[in-house]
Amino acid sequence: MAHKERSNKLFLLKLFVFSSVLVVCHSQYQPTWESLDSRPLPSWYDEAKLGIFLHWGVFSVPSFGSAWFWYDWKVFKYQGYIDFMKENYKPGFTYADFAKDFTAEFYQPAQWAKLFNDSGARYVVLTSKHHEGFTNWPSNVSFNWNSMDVGPQRDLVGELATAIREGTNLHFGLYHSMFEWFHPLYIEDKANNFTTTRFAKEKAMPELYEIINRYKPEVLWSDGAWQAPDTYWGSKEFLAWLYNDSPVRDTVVTNDRWGKGDMCHHGGYLTCTDKYNPGTLQKRKFENAMTVDKYAWGYRRNIQIADILTIEELIETLIETVSCGGNLLVNVGPTKSGFIIPVFQERLTQLGQWMNVNGEAIYSSKPWRFQNDTVTPRVWYTKQKTTEGDVVYGTVLKWPTSNTLILGAPKPSGQTLVNLVGYPQPINWKAGATGGIEIMLPTLTINTLPSKWAWVFKFTNLQN
Amino acid sequence: MAHKERSNKLFLLKLFVFSSVLVVCHSQYQPTWESLDSRPLPSWYDEAKLGIFLHWGVFSVPSFGSAWFWYDWKVFKYQGYIDFMKENYKPGFTYADFAKDFTAEFYQPAQWAKLFNDSGARYVVLTSKHHEGFTNWPSNVSFNWNSMDVGPQRDLVGELATAIREGTNLHFGLYHSMFEWFHPLYIEDKANNFTTTRFAKEKAMPELYEIINRYKPEVLWSDGAWQAPDTYWGSKEFLAWLYNDSPVRDTVVTNDRWGKGDMCHHGGYLTCTDKYNPGTLQKRKFENAMTVDKYAWGYRRNIQIADILTIEELIETLIETVSCGGNLLVNVGPTKSGFIIPVFQERLTQLGQWMNVNGEAIYSSKPWRFQNDTVTPRVWYTKQKTTEGDVVYGTVLKWPTSNTLILGAPKPSGQTLVNLVGYPQPINWKAGATGGIEIMLPTLTINTLPSKWAWVFKFTNLQN
Amino acid sequence: MAHKERSNKLFLLKLFVFSSVLVVCHSQYQPTWESLDSRPLPSWYDEAKLGIFLHWGVFSVPSFGSAWFWYDWKVFKYQGYIDFMKENYKPGFTYADFAKDFTAEFYQPAQWAKLFNDSGARYVVLTSKHHEGFTNWPSNVSFNWNSMDVGPQRDLVGELATAIREGTNLHFGLYHSMFEWFHPLYIEDKANNFTTTRFAKEKAMPELYEIINRYKPEVLWSDGAWQAPDTYWGSKEFLAWLYNDSPVRDTVVTNDRWGKGDMCHHGGYLTCTDKYNPGTLQKRKFENAMTVDKYAWGYRRNIQIADILTIEELIETLIETVSCGGNLLVNVGPTKSGFIIPVFQERLTQLGQWMNVNGEAIYSSKPWRFQNDTVTPRVWYTKQKTTEGDVVYGTVLKWPTSNTLILGAPKPSGQTLVNLVGYPQPINWKAGATGGIEIMLPTLTINTLPSKWAWVFKFTNLQN
Amino acid sequence: MAHKERSNKLFLLKLFVFSSVLVVCHSQYQPTWESLDSRPLPSWYDEAKLGIFLHWGVFSVPSFGSAWFWYDWKVFKYQGYIDFMKENYKPGFTYADFAKDFTAEFYQPAQWAKLFNDSGARYVVLTSKHHEGFTNWPSNVSFNWNSMDVGPQRDLVGELATAIREGTNLHFGLYHSMFEWFHPLYIEDKANNFTTTRFAKEKAMPELYEIINRYKPEVLWSDGAWQAPDTYWGSKEFLAWLYNDSPVRDTVVTNDRWGKGDMCHHGGYLTCTDKYNPGTLQKRKFENAMTVDKYAWGYRRNIQIADILTIEELIETLIETVSCGGNLLVNVGPTKSGFIIPVFQERLTQLGQWMNVNGEAIYSSKPWRFQNDTVTPRVWYTKQKTTEGDVVYGTVLKWPTSNTLILGAPKPSGQTLVNLVGYPQPINWKAGATGGIEIMLPTLTINTLPSKWAWVFKFTNLQN
Repeated sequence: MAHKERSNKLFLLKLFVFSSVLVVCHSQYQPTWESLDSRPLPSWYDEAKLGIFLHWGVFSVPSFGSAWFWYDWKVFKYQGYIDFMKENYKPGFTYADFAKDFTAEFYQPAQWAKLFNDSGARYVVLTSKHHEGFTNWPSNVSFNWNSMDVGPQRDLVGELATAIREGTNLHFGLYHSMFEWFHPLYIEDKANNFTTTRFAKEKAMPELYEIINRYKPEVLWSDGAWQAPDTYWGSKEFLAWLYNDSPVRDTVVTNDRWGKGDMCHHGGYLTCTDKYNPGTLQKRKFENAMTVDKYAWGYRRNIQIADILTIEELIETLIETVSCGGNLLVNVGPTKSGFIIPVFQERLTQLGQWMNVNGEAIYSSKPWRFQNDTVTPRVWYTKQKTTEGDVVYGTVLKWPTSNTLILGAPKPSGQTLVNLVGYPQPINWKAGATGGIEIMLPTLTINTLPSKWAWVFKFTNLQN
Repeated sequence: MAHKERSNKLFLLKLFVFSSVLVVCHSQYQPTWESLDSRPLPSWYDEAKLGIFLHWGVFSVPSFGSAWFWYDWKVFKYQGYIDFMKENYKPGFTYADFAKDFTAEFYQPAQWAKLFNDSGARYVVLTSKHHEGFTNWPSNVSFNWNSMDVGPQRDLVGELATAIREGTNLHFGLYHSMFEWFHPLYIEDKANNFTTTRFAKEKAMPELYEIINRYKPEVLWSDGAWQAPDTYWGSKEFLAWLYNDSPVRDTVVTNDRWGKGDMCHHGGYLTCTDKYNPGTLQKRKFENAMTVDKYAWGYRRNIQIADILTIEELIETLIETVSCGGNLLVNVGPTKSGFIIPVFQERLTQLGQWMNVNGEAIYSSKPWRFQNDTVTPRVWYTKQKTTEGDVVYGTVLKWPTSNTLILGAPKPSGQTLVNLVGYPQPINWKAGATGGIEIMLPTLTINTLPSKWAWVFKFTNLQN
Repeated sequence: MAHKERSNKLFLLKLFVFSSVLVVCHSQYQPTWESLDSRPLPSWYDEAKLGIFLHWGVFSVPSFGSAWFWYDWKVFKYQGYIDFMKENYKPGFTYADFAKDFTAEFYQPAQWAKLFNDSGARYVVLTSKHHEGFTNWPSNVSFNWNSMDVGPQRDLVGELATAIREGTNLHFGLYHSMFEWFHPLYIEDKANNFTTTRFAKEKAMPELYEIINRYKPEVLWSDGAWQAPDTYWGSKEFLAWLYNDSPVRDTVVTNDRWGKGDMCHHGGYLTCTDKYNPGTLQKRKFENAMTVDKYAWGYRRNIQIADILTIEELIETLIETVSCGGNLLVNVGPTKSGFIIPVFQERLTQLGQWMNVNGEAIYSSKPWRFQNDTVTPRVWYTKQKTTEGDVVYGTVLKWPTSNTLILGAPKPSGQTLVNLVGYPQPINWKAGATGGIEIMLPTLTINTLPSKWAWVFKFTNLQN
Repeated sequence: MAHKERSNKLFLLKLFVFSSVLVVCHSQYQPTWESLDSRPLPSWYDEAKLGIFLHWGVFSVPSFGSAWFWYDWKVFKYQGYIDFMKENYKPGFTYADFAKDFTAEFYQPAQWAKLFNDSGARYVVLTSKHHEGFTNWPSNVSFNWNSMDVGPQRDLVGELATAIREGTNLHFGLYHSMFEWFHPLYIEDKANNFTTTRFAKEKAMPELYEIINRYKPEVLWSDGAWQAPDTYWGSKEFLAWLYNDSPVRDTVVTNDRWGKGDMCHHGGYLTCTDKYNPGTLQKRKFENAMTVDKYAWGYRRNIQIADILTIEELIETLIETVSCGGNLLVNVGPTKSGFIIPVFQERLTQLGQWMNVNGEAIYSSKPWRFQNDTVTPRVWYTKQKTTEGDVVYGTVLKWPTSNTLILGAPKPSGQTLVNLVGYPQPINWKAGATGGIEIMLPTLTINTLPSKWAWVFKFTNLQN
């Protein structure tokens, strides 16, 4: 049947080619970076700005240290991990033994969907498989090392996809690790200097086709490809299929982790490094994937409050990132039971409260001429294009101690209006002494401020 | 040997009686409520105001529902519990089977001690044994149903006692449940209408002597005595010993849960009901034992952020309680691993931040003539006696929206001074139109307010 | 209430005494050894000869080493046990943790009853509680350390009692350990040189009353009393009750393990040492309690075939024991699943096959003048009293290599008849050259022998 | 390196071809049945006669029902299995969850080797992988579903190979299941009517190459190929490699289970059906693979003695099989702990005792003209070729009840000698009334018989 559909498609294609050759040429990507990189990023992604990242897997069972538990324990042999295992498990307890206790008994994807929606995020990215190789869906190529055969006995990926789509307008995305630390075929290919490709062909690629075809994710967040060239993985061929023929060809976005040397250079948007927050305007769309737990991506049972970003820090990171043209992908780690702990719920809810008031400065915004202010530190700018010219937003992270806020970047015109987002009255201002603008702050108590953290000033009719 | 010591003691006592009859009469309590109730509460307790309550036991292993898990499941047969067990455990899994997984691997009592100290609390009360009967110390009368024989393999009580004493100035206390839901001897005694006393004599009382002698708690928080009269338990004889001869006779405080009909009437301080927050001045010292989780005393793995008191609610409860003459005992439930989860750490730390600024209105304070204001709601009063007359504190839970705070209770004199605790300048005021006082609020932004939640005005030289 | 009943009873007793002094004196035992030892052993016991002993408890979970696992591990600290735990369990795994895996899922008491019945045994003795303290019934004084609260969730004792009584004519008996290695009250009493008696009064004795009243065992196999005098335990008072007033006063038999110095001297029948097989006629009834596993009483998962008595050895032990006036109590250890392994089934079935043919030499027999033969080794005698004089049985453990069997003990008369039990024809004989008798063996192939192991010659009308 | 070796080999081959074309043609098998079937079976196999079969895998953990546990439970949905799981495991317990408890803590391969050697067997066949897919060696294509990654954490196959080779002269063999009940790729290929071959190419065949190259088994016991044609599996190509180029090309024997329709027709020796015991002379070498447990191949924790073949039945099966030209492969199932239970030890040891006396009738024997006797039932014949003519052995399963054994098959000559194997004296005989021979049995008691079960008469110089 798939074959037949394809034939029809080709037939239609030919008709189309006949009438509109140029369009066809654009829509058909070749397995070269030149061609693949030329694809415009589907617009929803840049407009979304805020996503939720979820690291969930067998590492959520020990929930100790990090999602790299297995590697830290067995390869790096960090003492803390060795001691943890020695003190708490029987000798010979293997990492695979943890899978049995990946219970997910509190996993209610609809509850998650509501929480993510309330956070103001517009997309969600779940680890379909991390470097441990455990697939959170019943993969054909991960027999007895997937969430249906052991542990949850559920299709974790599929259930979340459904809940997100049924309960929210968020876009659903999947993270996927190309390599697996300990897969024998990968180890073999690597030992052969990647001249053999058994792992890529029999494991990694079949997985990618499976998740695209089954779950139709609109973000494909590739990872773990860095040790081998994309020619080993067959990434470009896969991306050509993804962009040309896959069921998500029109809306899917991908990142840049497709092989050695690709990161920060090729693919969809750029991630460059983990927690990439450059602080300056970027030429290409990027994403700052970061995590509420300062020290880990996976849930840690002994996470201290001091390890957790405050809401102020989170909002600061958001506005910095968006001002420079990036999206923020905020990670939280669910427990092995499938629960998102209260303090993470609190952070996401606080984020949502802030976005609820100040979202106009974020969603669908564009970077402005200035990213941050030239005079007052910790003030970051975005803009919205309107038919009446750009509206500029300046997000102030610390409420000034004096009554006046002096900004260097905005050049007021005679028609300039200044508003505090969420506050009904217009704000008085005057031209700054040395350029810029001086804003007369209204007297706002803790109860009358439009939000508790970070305040957004909106400038209409600035000089260009 | 114990017998011999006692003889010597009696001998010394007789000598003492000979020389100082009156003193002896005062210090020797009789096993009657008249006598026991006459004992003055050691002063440290009223001064302390804030304590931390810890519900920790085998119920922390399922950590589902509440500390009453066993009873709710087996006696009330609530569907939620029956389903939880049916879906997640093998048939025939017993409550006792949970004990094996009471691991306490992250239990670092010194870390707890620091957290409690940072919360501003002045005492800590740990469940030594809850109604399940599991003793958190190696009791002589709970063979294989205690924290040394199964699960943690540690003396949970002893370790916390040591950490609290070595690391802080907090007072250490113990909760103890008299009855046990399912102890066969208790069930037998109860079936005999408490005419037999095997359980009380062979189980409950030996435990109390054990914990007092071994751990010397300064709070003995008795519970679970309500089904049987104190004559069944032998409570009065025990209290006479506790007050006369025990190693903590000088400093120990107890509560009022010593037998059927005693609660809210006899004993040390009164607890009356759980979460006792009367809102009016009480004649006798009471304690409001409440919990940060609105719905449970023990840790629940699926606790939602919406189930958790906000810091604003916590502070409100504190000041209400203290204004009426009570102490607040704030409960958090540690995990089976011995960890206090981040959101509880956050609340306790926030409480500490507030106490750090505003503690002078709380510690060692006394109820004032008024408990709350007669004009403005949600303003609660305390006072400190000084050699120069009383200083009155009014805690304002909501920062006024106007610039003026009108209070009805304080009657200013010519010498009256008004301060905002934590704010350097004196505050302007004028006599209220219809009595009371009008306070001119300074213009304070979110950054200049002395604390984020609840503000304390201090009144010196009010009219009596 | 119990007290009241006793009073009434005494009142009735006095009336009775008035009318029938002699009877009362006989039936009322005093708590002295002189009186207790005077009680005649109920006759069923001596007639039974063969019993089955069952060691089953939490030790059946590790099923490693022996029923003394806990002690060997923690007190003797034998390396093998320490290594076993270290290699196979997590650190901090306690003995009590094993209880959870005492599953008994294959425990079908009716199946056991049939097997024991087929073995030719006439009574069964199950460990109600071994030195570990775990009670195989829901005791009132062993909360959460009994087979109903943890592990099996079944009344192991009660179910076997019922099955034995409903399915067979066997007598049901219970083993009970007085002391417990690690019970804190026992340790305390012992440290007090047994001047305190909390353990005996609150634990050991209440248990004995429980099992007698609930399960009405006809054998009470006491053990573990050796460290303390019977005055500590209150054994004599208990036995007086058992013999006078208990529901099994008419049929119960007990052994001799009632306190320091009692063993082999006082009580019911004597056990003297484990595996007591004196080889000579005993003055008092004894029991040889031994086990099919040469090295252990409890089941061991790694038991080798070489560790198991052959059927030849078992039968030899049986006939030796019975010839000297003893009963044989053959122990097998069930698995934690409640299963008796095939090789034990095989031995018991073989024993039954032999008894089926040769039982007339065993059941209700009496020791003869000679226990074993004076000429041919490994020939043991028993006799049956009949109205026509004694019938003597000589059990030959090794079939002679020659055609003639020469025995020194039997003195033939003119009327003497010799038979091979299970063989239809009478056997030819002649008077021995130097006294005794010479038996002309029939030519019997492996298929025509009446049994495969140990053959019984029956002598009628021997000289007295 | 492998590539290079092959080149050298080809080079040598060419030289060899040059000098000896014919030999090369014979030694190089083609991937056709015609060619493969032409390979002579290495002689050691027919000489060995007796092998031990071991079914060991994850099914040994539930050790309930059979090695088909998973399938019986999930596909056949037999009530007994459904109940077993429901009653003893938590809901959602998966088959893969059992793997964690495959502990193998008592697995001492040297002990096994000794036992097998003592049994008289000459080869051993271990399940390297059964239909469940769990590999008992660290396979490259069974990540986290093998004995190194989960459970034992040992190379079960490798350790036994070493122990057998170091401690005995037995040949080491491996069983391997081609298909896996639940492998998604297999299910997919099957759904595609085996027109796709992902499972065969990526899973089954790589495994076969792995085990041959790593463990060099001399028996490759293929199974589970019946649903798909050998063209799907690629069996013939594999066998060509095995016979031509593998490290065991000179000594390996295989069976006939290589694809749909192959069984009983193609391959090495024939197995035809499980427990194949035809009772008549076979044209081609066959093996009767059977099991000591009448009902299962894997260990069952609740195996009854009545389920176990007696030694008499075992020996009868052996001699029947060998008389008809077969080998006997006797299966026992080790426990999850790696232990062979006592009753299996007993049977194997008894077999060894018998072989020790009577092995000359078995090892290296050939079928005789007659398989069993024409007059007396349950007498089976073998022969040994000697330079002085054939020696014929008649194994008598039941010792005659009369003194004479009448046999119809042996035709005595004047020089005929008759012996009872293990008995020193020659046996008297006379020609039978109607042909055949009449043997005068010596008078042998149970102690003088050369063995306890089945007796072998040896005939020298019979008429041809």
